[in-house]
Amino acid sequence: MSMTATTSRAVDQPAATPLAAEIARVYGTPAVVIDLDKVDANITRLQATCDAAGLANRPHIKTHKSPELARLQIEAGARGITCQKLGEAEIMADGGIDDILISYNILGEEKLGRLGALQRRVRMIVAADNPVTISGLPRAGEIAGRDLEVVIECDTGRKRAGVETPGEAVELARMVAASPGLRFAGFLMYPPEDGWERTQAFLDTANAGLREVGLKADIVSTGGSPNLPHIGKLKGSTEHRSGTSIFNDRMQIAAGVATLDDCALMVYATVVSRAGPERGILDSGSKTLTSDKGNLDGHGYILEYPAARIAQFAEEHGFLDLSASNKRPLVGEVVRVVPNHVCVVVNMVDRLITVRGDKLIGELPVAARGRLT
Amino acid sequence: MSMTATTSRAVDQPAATPLAAEIARVYGTPAVVIDLDKVDANITRLQATCDAAGLANRPHIKTHKSPELARLQIEAGARGITCQKLGEAEIMADGGIDDILISYNILGEEKLGRLGALQRRVRMIVAADNPVTISGLPRAGEIAGRDLEVVIECDTGRKRAGVETPGEAVELARMVAASPGLRFAGFLMYPPEDGWERTQAFLDTANAGLREVGLKADIVSTGGSPNLPHIGKLKGSTEHRSGTSIFNDRMQIAAGVATLDDCALMVYATVVSRAGPERGILDSGSKTLTSDKGNLDGHGYILEYPAARIAQFAEEHGFLDLSASNKRPLVGEVVRVVPNHVCVVVNMVDRLITVRGDKLIGELPVAARGRLT
Repeated sequence: MSMTATTSRAVDQPAATPLAAEIARVYGTPAVVIDLDKVDANITRLQATCDAAGLANRPHIKTHKSPELARLQIEAGARGITCQKLGEAEIMADGGIDDILISYNILGEEKLGRLGALQRRVRMIVAADNPVTISGLPRAGEIAGRDLEVVIECDTGRKRAGVETPGEAVELARMVAASPGLRFAGFLMYPPEDGWERTQAFLDTANAGLREVGLKADIVSTGGSPNLPHIGKLKGSTEHRSGTSIFNDRMQIAAGVATLDDCALMVYATVVSRAGPERGILDSGSKTLTSDKGNLDGHGYILEYPAARIAQFAEEHGFLDLSASNKRPLVGEVVRVVPNHVCVVVNMVDRLITVRGDKLIGELPVAARGRLT
Repeated sequence: MSMTATTSRAVDQPAATPLAAEIARVYGTPAVVIDLDKVDANITRLQATCDAAGLANRPHIKTHKSPELARLQIEAGARGITCQKLGEAEIMADGGIDDILISYNILGEEKLGRLGALQRRVRMIVAADNPVTISGLPRAGEIAGRDLEVVIECDTGRKRAGVETPGEAVELARMVAASPGLRFAGFLMYPPEDGWERTQAFLDTANAGLREVGLKADIVSTGGSPNLPHIGKLKGSTEHRSGTSIFNDRMQIAAGVATLDDCALMVYATVVSRAGPERGILDSGSKTLTSDKGNLDGHGYILEYPAARIAQFAEEHGFLDLSASNKRPLVGEVVRVVPNHVCVVVNMVDRLITVRGDKLIGELPVAARGRLT
């Protein structure tokens, strides 16, 4: 067998676009790639949606974990950002963001110390849904030397965190207001898609309760990218938290709030095996695309083979069911996958590869990844 | 409200053990913790199992991604290690491991260059299940300046990678043998639990085919930690690849190959909300424990609350269903979770916290994490 012929044939990977071939050649696959043109457009669209509804924009950075992208969001008009944990907030404060909501109960000595240190540097708002959390928070205010703002997390149907009744919300608001070093700032809500009326009733009752005790919610924050069509629907809401919309994904498409063209992030993957005629293996498994299916069928959408189904995962294998696909990929072929849930995919990588249209730009560190706490 | 009373009450987190309280205090939660005494025992047990079966031990490091732990495995008697990708192999070679099998099709210019560079430094064996992969591999041998060993991956029922017939296996073995810079080294198999007879028939036919063309399989590698009770059952097998058994998890327990006491890795987590009497929220969601359920019920086993079910995940929320649990945790309480699938949990963190029994030792970097390729 001629060495030269062998080598040149195998080394070139067939790819749908010259950019895909270039990314495979420079970085290898799997590669997690964002199109900055689409990111810019998605940031602009979210800000315009919030502006049109008269709400402040406080994007959730758990999706991108990048201070650079957070700064773009602020430059576009966002009031501040939302984080889900202290480690994210610390990286964002280091990156120059100075108005941060952590939409999570912060508990324990280690975290309260870090929260206090953060609050000394930037405006911090934290969520609480129980007396234990609230009784710990003054420790942070004490370290910071100034008041910490606290929003009460309210549940109106998701059964995640959040008090279940307006009465509890008012009671906790009073507890916050009575605590040294804390200031009651308002309510954190995450209305289920079909729960806006219920959420309105909850908020109205809670606001009435606040008035009775001489308090007022300056912040009423709603959340969720799938909720973008409903922004401003909750009368009295003041801010919205949207994470996923900066990149979008198959879940956003399924929710009807994004198109394929709005998806800024793709996983470039290689077909590494075609052992059976109706099946193939992708070099992206649960350690790249994650097992988070988001209640969809299959584990991603392959742009070049829309009828191919990513049926199952091993850690580094995506099992392709090609039975419904007339067109079938070759071994070595580079394809582009839109993930089901983009937030968990970004969390798997230390860097994103950046492009603009068909041009390779460079890399963007996922700076707040790997911060478990 | 008295500041002192408030602070001291909330800052102490109730925990099942003094070690759990210490870990929460020092590192915060979630914390991914391994007990090195159990790791040592698990390494010794795997080596003894391979020794008793007369097979070489080639542990799969995708579970721990740590050169330090790989060296412990080698010191215990392992012949070499198995990796699933080049990035893992590079870190292991840097860490002094000099005999590495990559059980995966390596394709494309970028990867073949790296494979050649590795092969220059250490013994490399790679898997292939198709002509495209094999036609590229000489590029690596060329860079290395010496022969690269290739095993043919065979599928006997998992429908993952691997040729489906002994005839194809022999054909590819011949192709390898005829390629400059490559040496046919044997077969890579991963028998399904109920597929040992089928695998034996496959191997026997393939070996007969090899004899006809004057070739021989020096390596016949079997795989899987759930397969540990079957080690050596395949007549003609020479090596075994086991990954998960170094830590064990709920899937290993369900497979009947480990007990709870053999589980060396636990996620220490905090109950951050108890908004309803029958439910709670853990600070570990899909970004910590991952959505990989491994076909089990619930997303983990809580040592302190065995009847509590981790029913669902958000990214940083574990939804606890406490309806079947008479004992129920307090907000702020630290609990220990045995994950369903330990390999994907380790892959989420940059470091593991190490303990021995009830003593905190330190940290171990997950050095090969974040290497997507």
